[in-house]
Amino acid sequence: MLTCRTEIRVRYAETDMMSIAYHGSYLPWLEIGRTELLRQNGFPYAELERAGYRLPVLEIGMSYKRPALYDDVITIETTLREKPVLRIRMDYRLFKGEMLIATGHSVHAFLNHQNEVVRPPANFVAAIHRWFADAKS
Amino acid sequence: MLTCRTEIRVRYAETDMMSIAYHGSYLPWLEIGRTELLRQNGFPYAELERAGYRLPVLEIGMSYKRPALYDDVITIETTLREKPVLRIRMDYRLFKGEMLIATGHSVHAFLNHQNEVVRPPANFVAAIHRWFADAKS
Amino acid sequence: MLTCRTEIRVRYAETDMMSIAYHGSYLPWLEIGRTELLRQNGFPYAELERAGYRLPVLEIGMSYKRPALYDDVITIETTLREKPVLRIRMDYRLFKGEMLIATGHSVHAFLNHQNEVVRPPANFVAAIHRWFADAKS
Amino acid sequence: MLTCRTEIRVRYAETDMMSIAYHGSYLPWLEIGRTELLRQNGFPYAELERAGYRLPVLEIGMSYKRPALYDDVITIETTLREKPVLRIRMDYRLFKGEMLIATGHSVHAFLNHQNEVVRPPANFVAAIHRWFADAKS
Repeated sequence: MLTCRTEIRVRYAETDMMSIAYHGSYLPWLEIGRTELLRQNGFPYAELERAGYRLPVLEIGMSYKRPALYDDVITIETTLREKPVLRIRMDYRLFKGEMLIATGHSVHAFLNHQNEVVRPPANFVAAIHRWFADAKS
Repeated sequence: MLTCRTEIRVRYAETDMMSIAYHGSYLPWLEIGRTELLRQNGFPYAELERAGYRLPVLEIGMSYKRPALYDDVITIETTLREKPVLRIRMDYRLFKGEMLIATGHSVHAFLNHQNEVVRPPANFVAAIHRWFADAKS
Repeated sequence: MLTCRTEIRVRYAETDMMSIAYHGSYLPWLEIGRTELLRQNGFPYAELERAGYRLPVLEIGMSYKRPALYDDVITIETTLREKPVLRIRMDYRLFKGEMLIATGHSVHAFLNHQNEVVRPPANFVAAIHRWFADAKS
Repeated sequence: MLTCRTEIRVRYAETDMMSIAYHGSYLPWLEIGRTELLRQNGFPYAELERAGYRLPVLEIGMSYKRPALYDDVITIETTLREKPVLRIRMDYRLFKGEMLIATGHSVHAFLNHQNEVVRPPANFVAAIHRWFADAKS
């Protein structure tokens, strides 16, 4: 299991007329969460794209428990629970201080530039195995 | 069961560097779907807000099957399957022509302006009963 | 001089906590304005991109006079005043009913897929000449 | 003259199908710039709103010189050149490393919650005077 915590600050642009963060604003935050998880583990997503891979979103789910307000600092906790094979699933918990305000998940496939579903690149698979071996021990 | 079909055209601003509509762009489309369902049945959401009610999103789910591209015309089919009591759930199917490209759902609560969960307004409840009675017969 | 009028309806997602349309939301509206002007004159922007051209924004300006509110229908009036040579400038006036609520402009260059500034394609130039000849007579 | 430098990282959500940051994505960045300038000088914008003031955008201008790409770190340099009286103007320069990639400005008015144009609050005016006195000496 791999976990990463990263922070964002709610932008004015991300609020709506309910005076809270718009529910759709959370999706870019999840993206920051998984991007940072990959970066911290040595696989910047930008490099994955340069190597010809893309990770489109197949599925997304969000459960909103408490509002996020303008200027709030939100902690995004991203977790990769299982070794990805053809699909990669990430789980997210969002916190304001200690308070859980939302949970979510996303599912992705690896595509090559011909838009074909492919296995993840060998060095990514190797890294994944290493991460999970490290995490266990 | 209440259903409404409405169309949007994918904006350039809604694409991302995968050259497809960004997955987060779909959430405002669902919003247009449920707004139009309410409007066509005589309950513009704007009036609901003016009457002191808000319908924040508690839960959202999306499953992406095929990409939507810039300038594509997308049909949003919104369905209210069950009479809402304290929560209201909407289901969505998105089509490009005849092709199903995505499905989703959203769950909402009725809040008053003190942010308390409340029952929907009496005239909304009455309308809902009427709609479902009509739909059955 | 070429002019095109098109309408959008302000989305909930486009509002901010001032309970008005977020000032940044107007930029996609201008984009819809210029896209429709091109489409109505027989040059869908999507085709221009398929032919290998892109029209990135070099400059943007907006002046906000009155707010646009959620669910308002806004008319975007887009004007191409001058024949474009290397750059293309569009001017915009936004109306709520008869009331002018904002003005703006954008300047674009033609790029090929190697990101080089190029002259517009010959058939586009020919069309532009035809439009302006028609408009004069 | 007051200046503040702050950084953002380009989000995937902020790109478009030109594979660069969408031109509209810059407006929230300017907002982060001016928010940080106010925060660093002891006037968090959120507090200004809580005190009953709002600073809507009256005018915006952007000039795009070079693209910002996904995952790029962009420095936003925000400058308040003149003491605001009824209006406040901010100027922006955006950098990728040492390279200037865009310039912009925004003009704002102070509104109270009845949407009336008002003078800025006394403590804000006092602070402004202090900042500019400090900057001179």
